[in-house]
Amino acid sequence: MTPAGKFLVLDGIDGAGKSSQVKPLVGWLESHGCTVTTCRDPGSTPAGDAIRAILLDRHEIHLAPASEMLLYMAARAQLVADVIRPALARGEWVVSDRYLLANIVYQGHAGGLDPDVIRRVGAVATGGLAPDCVLLLDIDCATAARRLDRPLDKLESRGDEFRGRLRAGYLAEAARDPEHIAVIDAAAEPDIVAGRLRDALAARFPEIR
Amino acid sequence: MTPAGKFLVLDGIDGAGKSSQVKPLVGWLESHGCTVTTCRDPGSTPAGDAIRAILLDRHEIHLAPASEMLLYMAARAQLVADVIRPALARGEWVVSDRYLLANIVYQGHAGGLDPDVIRRVGAVATGGLAPDCVLLLDIDCATAARRLDRPLDKLESRGDEFRGRLRAGYLAEAARDPEHIAVIDAAAEPDIVAGRLRDALAARFPEIR
Repeated sequence: MTPAGKFLVLDGIDGAGKSSQVKPLVGWLESHGCTVTTCRDPGSTPAGDAIRAILLDRHEIHLAPASEMLLYMAARAQLVADVIRPALARGEWVVSDRYLLANIVYQGHAGGLDPDVIRRVGAVATGGLAPDCVLLLDIDCATAARRLDRPLDKLESRGDEFRGRLRAGYLAEAARDPEHIAVIDAAAEPDIVAGRLRDALAARFPEIR
Repeated sequence: MTPAGKFLVLDGIDGAGKSSQVKPLVGWLESHGCTVTTCRDPGSTPAGDAIRAILLDRHEIHLAPASEMLLYMAARAQLVADVIRPALARGEWVVSDRYLLANIVYQGHAGGLDPDVIRRVGAVATGGLAPDCVLLLDIDCATAARRLDRPLDKLESRGDEFRGRLRAGYLAEAARDPEHIAVIDAAAEPDIVAGRLRDALAARFPEIR
């Protein structure tokens, strides 16, 4: 029997190896009979892509912290309405590259806005739709920085001190909600990390064993 | 002595004659020694203009109600940070073509979102900065529709029934906060309406008499 769809999120600081884990994770879910919809936040809708372009336009557009946070929220509201809710309604699994937690950590813990304010605006943007599980790829900041040895976009190009606040913010949020946030040690080869993701999901959702 | 700066907003349904009142209003304030900064919401910053372009792109981009509301909020957060607060800090008067009230009425009363939710998100976007006075140009819907006898943009091209809900929403908000919202009868020649705006402001701010 096909396991009923769940909403999964991959998250972590830039350089944690998030994006390269999407494909093996989806393949493993599909091998268990799951139909999987993938998306990234911000993005994956025409409105989301247009908003993402504003967020990445580091040369032309200055963004106040609240404005940046609200742009992420607008993109997320569209993603929930057009992609995530319809996929879950069809009984599919959803794997999203980032979601609300990244907003709470980047603009909140590390960016200076009140995380609880972001949480409340997030409830409006998502209509209260929270992931069944966030897979948090945790890695020390030096390793993450080393992995990002390529031209960085605006969302990545911040310093070590900022990266340290991000990691602390993610771990604080995971400690706050261990039921929904699984901390995965991501300081290993991608194949090993992929195995850890599978183990974490199999422990939480025995129906996909 | 120059009167200390206040934050004024012109608002009303499309076709009420809002935009054509900006110039005479500013001229009158300047004739009393006020330095005036004008802006429009959404807009008046690079981020705001980019967001406005998304809001107006009716052919390519579908927007869920929450996403549309949050885009207005993001533009407003930037406008407050970059234009309105700095102008008020310099002691200037600010005249904004629309502000939070329009969001509450268009996406709330007429658009189906909860006005109180929009109010709460609005407090985050503006950091609590509310106008000293909203000049609400009130006009019956048939006259407004007649005045809009030109190609309409996405924000204007909605039907009579929607326009009726807008007007009712604006009047409900004015009844809720008469201290900060002045209802101006706008069903008259522009010169006469301009006189009514001046009278309303002179009554509220005796220092500019």
